[in-house]
Amino acid sequence: MAIVVQKFGGSSLADPPQIRRCARRAVAARDRGHEVVVVVSAMGDTTDSLVRLASQVIEKPSQREMDMLLATGEQVSIALMTMALHRLGADAVSMIAAQIGIITDEIHTQARIRSIDARCLREELDGGRIVVVAGFQGMSSDGQVTTLGRGGSDTTAVAIAAALGVGDEGGACEIYTDVAGVHTADPKYVPNARKLPRISYAEMLELASLGAGVLHPRAVMFGQKYSVPIHIRCSANADEGTLIVKENAAMEKVTVVGCALKADLDRISIRGVPNSPGTQAIVFGAIADANVLVDDIMQTQTTSGSANISFTVEHQDLAEVKPAVQRALDQLGCGEIAVEVGVAKVSVVGLGMRTHSGVAAAMFKALGDAGIDIKNITTSEIKVSCIVPKEDGPRALQAVHDAFGLQNPTIFQGKAPHV
Amino acid sequence: MAIVVQKFGGSSLADPPQIRRCARRAVAARDRGHEVVVVVSAMGDTTDSLVRLASQVIEKPSQREMDMLLATGEQVSIALMTMALHRLGADAVSMIAAQIGIITDEIHTQARIRSIDARCLREELDGGRIVVVAGFQGMSSDGQVTTLGRGGSDTTAVAIAAALGVGDEGGACEIYTDVAGVHTADPKYVPNARKLPRISYAEMLELASLGAGVLHPRAVMFGQKYSVPIHIRCSANADEGTLIVKENAAMEKVTVVGCALKADLDRISIRGVPNSPGTQAIVFGAIADANVLVDDIMQTQTTSGSANISFTVEHQDLAEVKPAVQRALDQLGCGEIAVEVGVAKVSVVGLGMRTHSGVAAAMFKALGDAGIDIKNITTSEIKVSCIVPKEDGPRALQAVHDAFGLQNPTIFQGKAPHV
Repeated sequence: MAIVVQKFGGSSLADPPQIRRCARRAVAARDRGHEVVVVVSAMGDTTDSLVRLASQVIEKPSQREMDMLLATGEQVSIALMTMALHRLGADAVSMIAAQIGIITDEIHTQARIRSIDARCLREELDGGRIVVVAGFQGMSSDGQVTTLGRGGSDTTAVAIAAALGVGDEGGACEIYTDVAGVHTADPKYVPNARKLPRISYAEMLELASLGAGVLHPRAVMFGQKYSVPIHIRCSANADEGTLIVKENAAMEKVTVVGCALKADLDRISIRGVPNSPGTQAIVFGAIADANVLVDDIMQTQTTSGSANISFTVEHQDLAEVKPAVQRALDQLGCGEIAVEVGVAKVSVVGLGMRTHSGVAAAMFKALGDAGIDIKNITTSEIKVSCIVPKEDGPRALQAVHDAFGLQNPTIFQGKAPHV
Repeated sequence: MAIVVQKFGGSSLADPPQIRRCARRAVAARDRGHEVVVVVSAMGDTTDSLVRLASQVIEKPSQREMDMLLATGEQVSIALMTMALHRLGADAVSMIAAQIGIITDEIHTQARIRSIDARCLREELDGGRIVVVAGFQGMSSDGQVTTLGRGGSDTTAVAIAAALGVGDEGGACEIYTDVAGVHTADPKYVPNARKLPRISYAEMLELASLGAGVLHPRAVMFGQKYSVPIHIRCSANADEGTLIVKENAAMEKVTVVGCALKADLDRISIRGVPNSPGTQAIVFGAIADANVLVDDIMQTQTTSGSANISFTVEHQDLAEVKPAVQRALDQLGCGEIAVEVGVAKVSVVGLGMRTHSGVAAAMFKALGDAGIDIKNITTSEIKVSCIVPKEDGPRALQAVHDAFGLQNPTIFQGKAPHV
């Protein structure tokens, strides 16, 4: 008997009939002989509604009170999911984070899990019950209600799977979403994108960070650290999805496993700051204080000895990041900001890049053949990213997908095409 | 510096502007030099919406899961109220029941408070903060989320006031509602009803139990037990409301302080059950198991030696109570049920009845003069109740109100009119 942790996101729990459908999934797993833990997000757009309510009370709510507010969404879901399981005749019990000891740090709205006390979960499972756990929530060691931020419920599910030793016993953490699994590219942009049966943690981590929204990078990291097999599946059907697993020799042979697009970025350039130690810390410290994630940082030195720094941000973060940068420049006493609104980032990811050369060249050729201007290039061991004009983003993704033959599973096994 | 506990009900918290208005009340009390604890209910009809949601999932939800579900309503309110206080520049912090140690028994959906750990509240107040506490919630000693049932938030407020020793220090527990205070009769039925400036716990307890909905009897009992001055006020204006206090000599002189109507009752009669020990326990035990409150129990003996038992229930409980009684009769092996749908109960209440005779006679005369049939009479030390036909209820209330001159404060000081 293995343990299966099933996580259902808000879009799979939009109304009572959908909750009942997800409950049937849990009962089916139990009927196959598994011990089952269900992790749920807030129903539908509950979280957005609560955020809107808070914004009608105060412009910048206290983060502690936001956590108090938002944690209610998942609590509603666990109660209703447990009732749905009861209706199916299953023995089930709901648990908020505090009750199963999901202890986090004190960083409200973006807390990190420190520990999970698996004893309580173990006890309920031993009693033959399906345990329904509120995702996204935590409790700090001094008893404050915390939340885990974006992707929080995914992280809860994988962390619980890790705490229960799911990987050791042949179980899995199943993440149910409204897509069929992880694809070679976002099917919204690339109609002939192919669902991947398997992908390594490292590749998934890159894809998730580069814009593939099916699973949050933090959940992938947790899974990798504790070797939790993660199964991304569609809640609307019984099809196999994508299994995220440890890399193996066969995976190493695949040069490019998938590509991703961040469709709506802006590029911020800072000119004329001193090229001296501490400049970067001041600039990016100010941005971090504004809780904005930046990407694709590039620094160049001018002949006059000053430095130019550029980076990209999500367009939605632009309003936050500009004043933060201005504060840093005020502190430095020099420099000026220029903003280029409307760029996109297309990336290719694959473990095989570590041993196969020419991936970057093939990508540049594909973009060049499509007549797309490359504004910036960044690479890591297993990915290559290019910044392109925003309007060329989807076309760039399709061009790269075609160039590496990702629609065809036979092509990208063990060789780098067009290279 | 006294402690003021302010409780705001759901109808005073229907939307963000109303929440902000209640927050101004709390800040005004703080500005007058008080330490302030705010207790809130769920916003508007949140609780009803959650109950409806549960009913779409399962017909008879588990009571544990109902508590898990319903407790979220108050948690939303404390977060938003605290944000509203922050907006006014006040230092404030929200607390769920578990965080301030409101320990209850394990009876889900109808838990009783066992203890409150005032240390946490005291610590926050000492830190200069307004503490915003979720009403209605509790936590059982084994860490389960419980709720206190009807009138739960009133009970939370009075219990917190008791735990903080509000009565000893010149403070008060202010219950804000959408009415101006306690009246000599419900103004909905009796247009010339008068607001009472003061009333004793005992009188309030009778009136609340007899249908005056402004405050739940449990909260009154708590207040009486711990001598908490309770001030019933309207959240929409700054007028003085009604103060519920210990009885004093002046109060004893008032024969009738107010009257009340239960407008929609049914009378259930059981005929032909054995007049032997245990019969009543079986009948009313079955009804208690169905969580229905009964009232005005009357038993008569027939010449054949069997007994007839009758009692009233709220009309909304009839569907629950009939099968419960039938189960009891099945167990007894005899007896039959008759239901009279549509009766009302009119009652007069006053401490002075203990020393003034003739109140009952005056009431019967008033009803008789109005041509209203009296179906049943019950009395206690400080009240007289008559069961009348449902359609005569409001008219009976007005007749009794008129007979005792309750609209006029000079008349009912120290003498029983018409007697």
